[in-house]
Amino acid sequence: MIKNIGFIGLGIMGTPMAGHLLKAGYRVCVYDVAAVQREKLVAQGAIGAGSPKEAAQSAEVIITMLPASAIVEAVVLGENGVLGAMEKGAILIDMSTTSITTTKKIAAAIEKAGLVMLDAPVSGGDVGAIEATLSIMVGGPEAAFQKVLPVLQKMGRNVTHIGGAGSGQVAKACNQVVVAMTIQAVGEALVFAKKNGADPAKIREAMMGGFAQSRVLELHGQRMIEHNFIPGGKVRLHQKDLDIVLEAAKDVGVYMPGTALVSQIWNSLAAMGGLDWDHSAIVRGIELLSQTQL
Amino acid sequence: MIKNIGFIGLGIMGTPMAGHLLKAGYRVCVYDVAAVQREKLVAQGAIGAGSPKEAAQSAEVIITMLPASAIVEAVVLGENGVLGAMEKGAILIDMSTTSITTTKKIAAAIEKAGLVMLDAPVSGGDVGAIEATLSIMVGGPEAAFQKVLPVLQKMGRNVTHIGGAGSGQVAKACNQVVVAMTIQAVGEALVFAKKNGADPAKIREAMMGGFAQSRVLELHGQRMIEHNFIPGGKVRLHQKDLDIVLEAAKDVGVYMPGTALVSQIWNSLAAMGGLDWDHSAIVRGIELLSQTQL
Repeated sequence: MIKNIGFIGLGIMGTPMAGHLLKAGYRVCVYDVAAVQREKLVAQGAIGAGSPKEAAQSAEVIITMLPASAIVEAVVLGENGVLGAMEKGAILIDMSTTSITTTKKIAAAIEKAGLVMLDAPVSGGDVGAIEATLSIMVGGPEAAFQKVLPVLQKMGRNVTHIGGAGSGQVAKACNQVVVAMTIQAVGEALVFAKKNGADPAKIREAMMGGFAQSRVLELHGQRMIEHNFIPGGKVRLHQKDLDIVLEAAKDVGVYMPGTALVSQIWNSLAAMGGLDWDHSAIVRGIELLSQTQL
Repeated sequence: MIKNIGFIGLGIMGTPMAGHLLKAGYRVCVYDVAAVQREKLVAQGAIGAGSPKEAAQSAEVIITMLPASAIVEAVVLGENGVLGAMEKGAILIDMSTTSITTTKKIAAAIEKAGLVMLDAPVSGGDVGAIEATLSIMVGGPEAAFQKVLPVLQKMGRNVTHIGGAGSGQVAKACNQVVVAMTIQAVGEALVFAKKNGADPAKIREAMMGGFAQSRVLELHGQRMIEHNFIPGGKVRLHQKDLDIVLEAAKDVGVYMPGTALVSQIWNSLAAMGGLDWDHSAIVRGIELLSQTQL
């Protein structure tokens, strides 16, 4: 039975996730570079730590939820890092979205030390984190997955074991490819509808009943029609995710013309000052180049 | 109450659709250029006609289900065409997928003659036609839509009135854009998964629980994993549909880079001799250029 959890990274995602673990009765020791973030969790009953290493001490499970591959690497393998404090039998769960190469590198270092790491990135955004309805895609040893499953289920609804080390990150990468291109698809379709004199809201409704149905059409389609680009899933993060995908695609040789196209469209949103808009704002580029607005 | 229906075009879609109307108790007069197709329906109780005009005579509703815009135009406006036989109050329902320009042109000619046309293209393929579960997107006058709704509901499950003349075709065009790009998205993601050493079936399953969920991921994703490209929805027809979209996009000025990309990919499938494969075969191009197979 897991009782002690170290939780590192208390941003928009990590804060509610760590909160769910506290509510579930775990002893949670938290760390974030921002003291104010740690204090929020301490006020909810967490123990504050002064370093990643301190957060990892005496924990059976250490969770990292960080914004970039390099930060995960520093937090785990760097000075005062998690690896220096992990005890025999402890399991590191990296829930950040990181590059597949970095994940495999960290997993190898952890394994070399006789310990276990799972890569367990999530889908569902801040709403999913707050409502504990995240999809969690897990790579790494099956036995470790089974052991930490009750912990993961406190934060998410669809928790799937994909396969060996790195495969959680592969699943997340695939997810981001499909979501990005589907947003682009819905954006092109709704602008097409508008410019051809049809009501985009009616078209969305009709499409929901057929082969074009998707969660993206439902949620992001509605956002486009309302021109509501308050995030939600930020362009900035999705841009980072497609960078990871295209880097891995380059490494292993995968032909991804649609993904590459959307990654260029993120650049146009950056040009519009829209990196912190919701990713459904893809439609603004289509609108701009079609000289219309939904 | 509608009792007499003329039905023109008895292909893979029209045959089961006309069959449902017969089963529902309508008197259906059928025409197709292929006598053998007419005879199939006559064996089920239909009346055979020798021309589109003959099929339209004494019908309160005339349905066309034809493979190309030019054929619809010839069948409706040409010699021995439907228009010559339509009686006052009769409603023409074109359920073919035709160009928006052609649809508006035919609708205008019908209107000029004091008659009514609805454009009512469908989504759902041959399976939807056989199971009477088609999505039907309807453009044209609301009163006519309400009048023929019971007839349409014999063939489909989601019957939506979108707006004025041509808007059914606009909705269908949008549908085909979203479906095409979502297939491409799923294809890129699954090949990426495979080449990164993860199990595409597991990845599909995990994605079904999150924002990447779609009917395309569910159905076409499964086809890709099984390498089952028996149609279903043929590349040939989807290629035609995107031609219609890109023509209309050019006419009114819509920026559709993703749609244009997929329309090029249809060309690569043509090069592989795959025009009669299921449209999920998009993945074969991605596989070929990534030197792998799901």
